[in-house]
Amino acid sequence: MKLYTTKNSGNGYKVALLLSLLKHPYETVIVDFPNGEHKRKPFIDLNPRSQVPVLEDEGRVLWDSSACLVYIARKYGGEAWLPSDPGKMGEVMQWIALALNEIQFGLQYTRGIVRGIRTGHYDEGAELGRKGLGVLDGRLQRNDWLALGRPTIGDIACYPYTARAPEGNISLDPYPAVQGWIKRIEALPGYFKVG
Amino acid sequence: MKLYTTKNSGNGYKVALLLSLLKHPYETVIVDFPNGEHKRKPFIDLNPRSQVPVLEDEGRVLWDSSACLVYIARKYGGEAWLPSDPGKMGEVMQWIALALNEIQFGLQYTRGIVRGIRTGHYDEGAELGRKGLGVLDGRLQRNDWLALGRPTIGDIACYPYTARAPEGNISLDPYPAVQGWIKRIEALPGYFKVG
Repeated sequence: MKLYTTKNSGNGYKVALLLSLLKHPYETVIVDFPNGEHKRKPFIDLNPRSQVPVLEDEGRVLWDSSACLVYIARKYGGEAWLPSDPGKMGEVMQWIALALNEIQFGLQYTRGIVRGIRTGHYDEGAELGRKGLGVLDGRLQRNDWLALGRPTIGDIACYPYTARAPEGNISLDPYPAVQGWIKRIEALPGYFKVG
Repeated sequence: MKLYTTKNSGNGYKVALLLSLLKHPYETVIVDFPNGEHKRKPFIDLNPRSQVPVLEDEGRVLWDSSACLVYIARKYGGEAWLPSDPGKMGEVMQWIALALNEIQFGLQYTRGIVRGIRTGHYDEGAELGRKGLGVLDGRLQRNDWLALGRPTIGDIACYPYTARAPEGNISLDPYPAVQGWIKRIEALPGYFKVG
């Protein structure tokens, strides 16, 4: 298995984190973003979106962190990280959708703007990000994990840019339940910090 | 089964379209957006994001169109619309992710801005939307469907706001393969037009 990513990609990190939690071996291929490798062949043949992560496994190529998480969880994670039951799968999927919406276009983007690696509109991103944090906190006030009462790929999808929200000047102080959840994720066996 | 939606929600329509293609009976509950019903109890207990669609089935409540599509496809669609094989599931998931990113924050939002139902930054949305259309068209130049060589919930997730892109002043003329795919979707038995 090959994981195409960059050293600092939070989306690549989601996939690396799941593989680490599963203790599944893989090879990391660093894509040279500063030199535009992601915008050229052969990389764009792997991913026409010119983004990391990309996963290559047994001849199959998958782009998008969510697709990689779904694939790995179902292929190597048994029933733990994404169960086959339709209702449980739907419950996990809700949080993957939140990660792709409020967290990415809110928290990831505001952090990128503050760090100068992205242009955009800070206030709108911050509003969307805080909306996402409110939904997460509401859920986590009464539950240790986002879905199913145990860690799933829903948690992994939401975790990295939620934990890094303060780097985008979005404080987690108003979201104590989110803070407790971050600590629980970081205490999972196999957890490692990005970068 | 109850589907909470509005008359014009493209995301609610995705769920209704899958149910129609599957010929699965359900009850529609129209949420009164003009009067803010989606922002108050009891609706926010169903969906803390204050959005449609929401699905209620056999005592389970799911928000987010993607989660609803995954649930319905796995529970009532056999292996057709979202197969259980991890690689195939990952392939479908790629296009759901595109729908949640380039299509929603690009094509859905620019259409909303043009129609005056959303504020935002047209040019950035248009750029993102066209990026998504380019990825779709590249795929569809050599394939009739986005994943697996047959219609899946990946197609359903991408279809509504792609087909409506011209209402956001984004022409589909440069994307002939996308236009052909739209026609194929609209010819599926059980297809119906939104609104």
